Amino acid sequence: MQYTYVTEDLKKKMKNLRREFHRYPETAWTEYRTAWRAAGELEKNGFQVYTGNAACCSDARMGLPSAAYLEACEQRALSEGVPKLIMERIGSGRTAVAGILKGKFPGPVRVLRFDMDALPVEEAETEKNRDYLSRHAGIMHACGHDGHMAAGLGLAEILEKNRDKIRGEIRLLFQPAEEGCRGARSLTEKGWLEGADELYCGHIGMGEKRLGNITACSGGFLATTKLDILFHGKPSHAAKAPEQGRNALLAAAVCTVNAYAISRSGRGEGRINIGRFSGGSGRNIIAGEARLEAETRGETSEVNQYMKDSLERVARASAAMYGTACEFLEQGESRTAASSPALAEKCRRAAESMGPGCVYRTTGVFGASEDAAELMGRLQEQGGEAAYFLFGTPLSAEHHQPEFDFDEEVLAVMAEFYSRILLD
Amino acid sequence: MQYTYVTEDLKKKMKNLRREFHRYPETAWTEYRTAWRAAGELEKNGFQVYTGNAACCSDARMGLPSAAYLEACEQRALSEGVPKLIMERIGSGRTAVAGILKGKFPGPVRVLRFDMDALPVEEAETEKNRDYLSRHAGIMHACGHDGHMAAGLGLAEILEKNRDKIRGEIRLLFQPAEEGCRGARSLTEKGWLEGADELYCGHIGMGEKRLGNITACSGGFLATTKLDILFHGKPSHAAKAPEQGRNALLAAAVCTVNAYAISRSGRGEGRINIGRFSGGSGRNIIAGEARLEAETRGETSEVNQYMKDSLERVARASAAMYGTACEFLEQGESRTAASSPALAEKCRRAAESMGPGCVYRTTGVFGASEDAAELMGRLQEQGGEAAYFLFGTPLSAEHHQPEFDFDEEVLAVMAEFYSRILLD
Amino acid sequence: MQYTYVTEDLKKKMKNLRREFHRYPETAWTEYRTAWRAAGELEKNGFQVYTGNAACCSDARMGLPSAAYLEACEQRALSEGVPKLIMERIGSGRTAVAGILKGKFPGPVRVLRFDMDALPVEEAETEKNRDYLSRHAGIMHACGHDGHMAAGLGLAEILEKNRDKIRGEIRLLFQPAEEGCRGARSLTEKGWLEGADELYCGHIGMGEKRLGNITACSGGFLATTKLDILFHGKPSHAAKAPEQGRNALLAAAVCTVNAYAISRSGRGEGRINIGRFSGGSGRNIIAGEARLEAETRGETSEVNQYMKDSLERVARASAAMYGTACEFLEQGESRTAASSPALAEKCRRAAESMGPGCVYRTTGVFGASEDAAELMGRLQEQGGEAAYFLFGTPLSAEHHQPEFDFDEEVLAVMAEFYSRILLD
Amino acid sequence: MQYTYVTEDLKKKMKNLRREFHRYPETAWTEYRTAWRAAGELEKNGFQVYTGNAACCSDARMGLPSAAYLEACEQRALSEGVPKLIMERIGSGRTAVAGILKGKFPGPVRVLRFDMDALPVEEAETEKNRDYLSRHAGIMHACGHDGHMAAGLGLAEILEKNRDKIRGEIRLLFQPAEEGCRGARSLTEKGWLEGADELYCGHIGMGEKRLGNITACSGGFLATTKLDILFHGKPSHAAKAPEQGRNALLAAAVCTVNAYAISRSGRGEGRINIGRFSGGSGRNIIAGEARLEAETRGETSEVNQYMKDSLERVARASAAMYGTACEFLEQGESRTAASSPALAEKCRRAAESMGPGCVYRTTGVFGASEDAAELMGRLQEQGGEAAYFLFGTPLSAEHHQPEFDFDEEVLAVMAEFYSRILLD
Repeated sequence: MQYTYVTEDLKKKMKNLRREFHRYPETAWTEYRTAWRAAGELEKNGFQVYTGNAACCSDARMGLPSAAYLEACEQRALSEGVPKLIMERIGSGRTAVAGILKGKFPGPVRVLRFDMDALPVEEAETEKNRDYLSRHAGIMHACGHDGHMAAGLGLAEILEKNRDKIRGEIRLLFQPAEEGCRGARSLTEKGWLEGADELYCGHIGMGEKRLGNITACSGGFLATTKLDILFHGKPSHAAKAPEQGRNALLAAAVCTVNAYAISRSGRGEGRINIGRFSGGSGRNIIAGEARLEAETRGETSEVNQYMKDSLERVARASAAMYGTACEFLEQGESRTAASSPALAEKCRRAAESMGPGCVYRTTGVFGASEDAAELMGRLQEQGGEAAYFLFGTPLSAEHHQPEFDFDEEVLAVMAEFYSRILLD
Repeated sequence: MQYTYVTEDLKKKMKNLRREFHRYPETAWTEYRTAWRAAGELEKNGFQVYTGNAACCSDARMGLPSAAYLEACEQRALSEGVPKLIMERIGSGRTAVAGILKGKFPGPVRVLRFDMDALPVEEAETEKNRDYLSRHAGIMHACGHDGHMAAGLGLAEILEKNRDKIRGEIRLLFQPAEEGCRGARSLTEKGWLEGADELYCGHIGMGEKRLGNITACSGGFLATTKLDILFHGKPSHAAKAPEQGRNALLAAAVCTVNAYAISRSGRGEGRINIGRFSGGSGRNIIAGEARLEAETRGETSEVNQYMKDSLERVARASAAMYGTACEFLEQGESRTAASSPALAEKCRRAAESMGPGCVYRTTGVFGASEDAAELMGRLQEQGGEAAYFLFGTPLSAEHHQPEFDFDEEVLAVMAEFYSRILLD
Repeated sequence: MQYTYVTEDLKKKMKNLRREFHRYPETAWTEYRTAWRAAGELEKNGFQVYTGNAACCSDARMGLPSAAYLEACEQRALSEGVPKLIMERIGSGRTAVAGILKGKFPGPVRVLRFDMDALPVEEAETEKNRDYLSRHAGIMHACGHDGHMAAGLGLAEILEKNRDKIRGEIRLLFQPAEEGCRGARSLTEKGWLEGADELYCGHIGMGEKRLGNITACSGGFLATTKLDILFHGKPSHAAKAPEQGRNALLAAAVCTVNAYAISRSGRGEGRINIGRFSGGSGRNIIAGEARLEAETRGETSEVNQYMKDSLERVARASAAMYGTACEFLEQGESRTAASSPALAEKCRRAAESMGPGCVYRTTGVFGASEDAAELMGRLQEQGGEAAYFLFGTPLSAEHHQPEFDFDEEVLAVMAEFYSRILLD
Repeated sequence: MQYTYVTEDLKKKMKNLRREFHRYPETAWTEYRTAWRAAGELEKNGFQVYTGNAACCSDARMGLPSAAYLEACEQRALSEGVPKLIMERIGSGRTAVAGILKGKFPGPVRVLRFDMDALPVEEAETEKNRDYLSRHAGIMHACGHDGHMAAGLGLAEILEKNRDKIRGEIRLLFQPAEEGCRGARSLTEKGWLEGADELYCGHIGMGEKRLGNITACSGGFLATTKLDILFHGKPSHAAKAPEQGRNALLAAAVCTVNAYAISRSGRGEGRINIGRFSGGSGRNIIAGEARLEAETRGETSEVNQYMKDSLERVARASAAMYGTACEFLEQGESRTAASSPALAEKCRRAAESMGPGCVYRTTGVFGASEDAAELMGRLQEQGGEAAYFLFGTPLSAEHHQPEFDFDEEVLAVMAEFYSRILLD
């Protein structure tokens, strides 16, 4: 690997940043400390920075946590150094950050997106991570977003140092709530793609295990819908009058089994999951309430729609079966997407210029959903081009696992690659 | 109604006690403030009082809450006035209280049981209860145990005042954790029925709506088993590798549906309920863990055993169906019971002596489970006699409902009736 | 046992008749040969005999088999000796037979019912039944109705011989289609209970194992509904376009599981069964059609109604869950009933007069459904009295089993008992 | 379309043959009349013909119907003209036919397969098919195999007329029981691929709607397993002793629902279907027996294996859940396959030589299973080449529908195309 832009010092800085983010993981819409640090770094590097209502369309946020949880996270962030004035701007889940750097020469508007949220996973301590183990119980950067941000902020420093070479305008977007596909719309609705020509997004790992591999995803993003289903029944005494209850828990169980039984489709692959189930108030009470957290996916938006329609039909029928009512709360949504062929050649050249260790490939397989698809699809619809890359790295465990960790060298690959695309 | 033992002052005192208990409801095994107050009243009335390890066989307690919850409740009780020295005795869920009063004359050993625990129900404020509304969020005396205790302590005062008339020995047992049939064994195993001749237990309401009715239950207590079922599977990414997961949530849902589908029995009525379901860690993860809180009941212990065996078979098969393992945690158990015919005549006379407003009846129907059955059955096995009474009162809502309340006049009926049995 | 009316010759005659009926069993609404023989015997004994439309209200018949099956059974009956002219009267499932004998003296109108239909059970050959084994493949008198008829016709001969002693009018009803509670209404609607004062029905066996026991059922008949549920979906190729199908078989399977899961009721015991399931047209086709044969029962008509309403709700929801339609075809229905107390004393005397071997008892337990309840309830509603008896006999296997058989001595007990009631 | 080999007379002959086959459809393993006619035509055209045990490995047949059904079909075929002597050879389901024609010149051994079986579908009468409507109630050539045979026999006549041009050896195989993937093994095990170099199979329609389109399937055959699952329980009286039964029908229903709920796989598309369900003996009996007809499919054999393993696990657990036993009867199996690239060029040339109306394409999508895959895979494993073609034709309804019909011109396309491959 040949690095032109990434120095040893920058490598070290990115590593430190990543580890700091890793120590203070924050879940979707509570990335207060994270946003504060990202905004600070961008400012230091001469970016025009936008936060709070200036960065984020509040009404377009999906799957916001409870006010109580937001509040508790704000307190934690304040105790960890976020100034009160900043919190006034970004509190209540307004955690998006955007930084703009304008070049000296006219040129295209290019946007890069980095995601910020961590996951509700309890980190497992290992020999390696002892130094930067999560300090937030039950929360962990188990997907690599800490690395994405570190690379993005490393890139910011490179851009600042190479400001003379910048043509047009560069927008770095730090997105909240990528998990669950809940946050991208708060950026698109705010207008961050207006006038944009190119969009670059990416992810470390995701099946790419070899450091140096850069793989453009020409497709395979699954369209997805995140849905909570609430069943409202009527409690009753389980021994004396079970027939007077309307068993919401049983309705939800029937819904669960039959959700998985939704017919496979000849039009493409679909997915369904009931990831959480909670219901009932006591052992000897016919349960009056139950909640399912569900998601559907589809190889195409059509298949996802088929899955979602089927799920809603199953849920409604399950509710009716036991005399209960059901309610749907949409918690997130994303679509399919594909890297624009028009960008392929330029990207390939950027990667190959990094030496023989850097292998550029394309794949049609992503096999999961990505909130980036919302940004990519939106830009492509308005005539722009978008690309999505996987940056290879060995992992110590799969994404979302308590032992997840990666080779931090990938941060250098990521920053260098983006730099070459933007500056060469 | 003619009261010989219950004075207007005592009525007022019982009402106040009941309302105090009502304000500070405590769920099973956390009746710290309750136990402290009960013990205090007994002592004041000259009873020899036993608490903590002296009252309660710790190993025989079932369905104990988590250490964290016990601890939190202890803190709350301390803040509400329980002295530290008392808490040292009764902490960690050792909340049983026993009071013994010996008469001047030789005579039988007679035991009365009063239950102390409240329910995890959020009380609804009404015109009537404004003054004594629960001060513990989400907890409520929604079954009437507050009334039982008040009547029991009123009885203690009567006994003290009529000590001269007492023959033999009277034991008043204040039992924790009646709900879920979890606490009676901690009393029987401690030996409180040793040498006992008669046992009296009872409940207000339970379908008896007319004030003055006293109904002896000649049967109909349902045998019951309380069981938690844990499913242990393997999480996996719901989109990329759903087939690698072992879906514990789905297994639990299948178990739930099929638990209700256990065949009715030609040998008697049974009941089954899955009262709580919690499973899964995140929407996009095939759930690795799930827990069900179940109970079975039977008109006879044989039918209950059939229900329980069937439930375990269904659970094991559900677990196997999705490649998961299951585990059973027994949380409570009770048996069937019947009032001893030998006591009937005496009780009838006691009731009828209270005037025409007091109607004594017997019924074979109880239709629920009662931890008292453990005490009754145990005493009857060793040759003693036991009786269970329902004390009629109009209710403002059914037992276990947020609006539950009763006519406090029933406390006088209960105290007077027991007094006549013990003293006349 | 002392027989006044039943002679050794009559015993032999009843045995032969029973064995003849046993050899030629006929299922509901196809009792052609049976009806012909019963009518012939009644005529021989001087009864005024009614058959075909004169005996049976065609529109009130429930659960009639297909025209093709009726036709096939008619052909079989013709080949077994039924004259064409008789078949013209009784063909198409008009198989009820009524015989009236008027006494010389004025007196009450008394009705006795005997049921005629056999079951779709393949008889097992034994040492004992070799001589009278069923000649109709897959059909068997596995419940004892052959015995009921033999006793009824034996009674007819006794009545004829004691005509002088008869007061009032005696109606012997030979009912088709008792199984499934499908035939009684065709008699009540025809008016056979008009003007009637007393009704006597009975059954051999049914848990009464001791020969000589005669037990009056004071209750315990389960109300019941027999229901076919048809699911209409849409077939599609299971590999190429499974999502285009509407899976009727899957809807029916969901209905089946959840039918059993209908909540037990605190108001009394219920029963549910899906006894048959047939669906689908080919292994590789999403099934477009499915049919369930269901029944509900209840300790009371209210509980049965609850079960039936719940089943229909479950079925409708199951159908909706998979985009299919469902249809209900009622196939039978009966109610609860109880023997009239007013008849008890007379019956007891009749039984006790038969000597010490004959033990008369009453029981509240029947535990199954009986089409007789329709007749009993109807008569009681219009002011008459009704009684239902179990006549004890050892069985070689339970009712409805391939090895079912009984002690033919019970026929004598039955005929003698009825004779004493009617003649003494 | 330019026809060199197919004359107007031959077109007419093929049409007549197809309509004759259509009039006398015969389901799997009962193609008696069909085999007799095919063998006769081959003989007439100078082929060495093999039938009965000489054509078919009896032990390798899968999913054979009952002896009674085979016998009934033999009687029908005899009544429709099949000579007794022929029936002695081919009776009992030995219906494969093979014809061999050796050329004058040395050359490759080339095999063509045509399938013979019809489907259990009741044909719908239309304006068009009145003349050749199925004469066998409930059976219909609803997939086009009648056309395949007619084209194959037309080809036989062409080969006879062009015998001088034939190099090597040509084997025409007429296969029974393609539906359900049950018959191919009886040919491979008999050795019909021994020494073979090339294999050609094909199907009309299957999504190819344009007459003249010839599409080589480069993949997409789904691996499949056909499985009957029997549940053995214990019957009991549904009202008196439901708890004593072991409900096989309920176990099968649970199996059905959960079979569909088998997790989708990240390794490729799968399919599952329970196409038929039959269970139970009577409405009021807890069902002692039930049978499911199931199939699994997979994009790869690995996925099919995953589906099959999962289905068996689900079935075993469903059986255990209700105390029943289950048994698996394998009824058919096929694998994935792909046309050999080595044949592609030759085939393309043959098609394109037929003029601009004939469009040759390749597709990776077949989307269903084909017993041909067994032959193709077997030959490819031993070093030979195989190709599978779809011959386009408009359809009046989808395959397997009662209104299915096609444009008989496709027979000429098929015969001409195969002739050019074999003779040019």
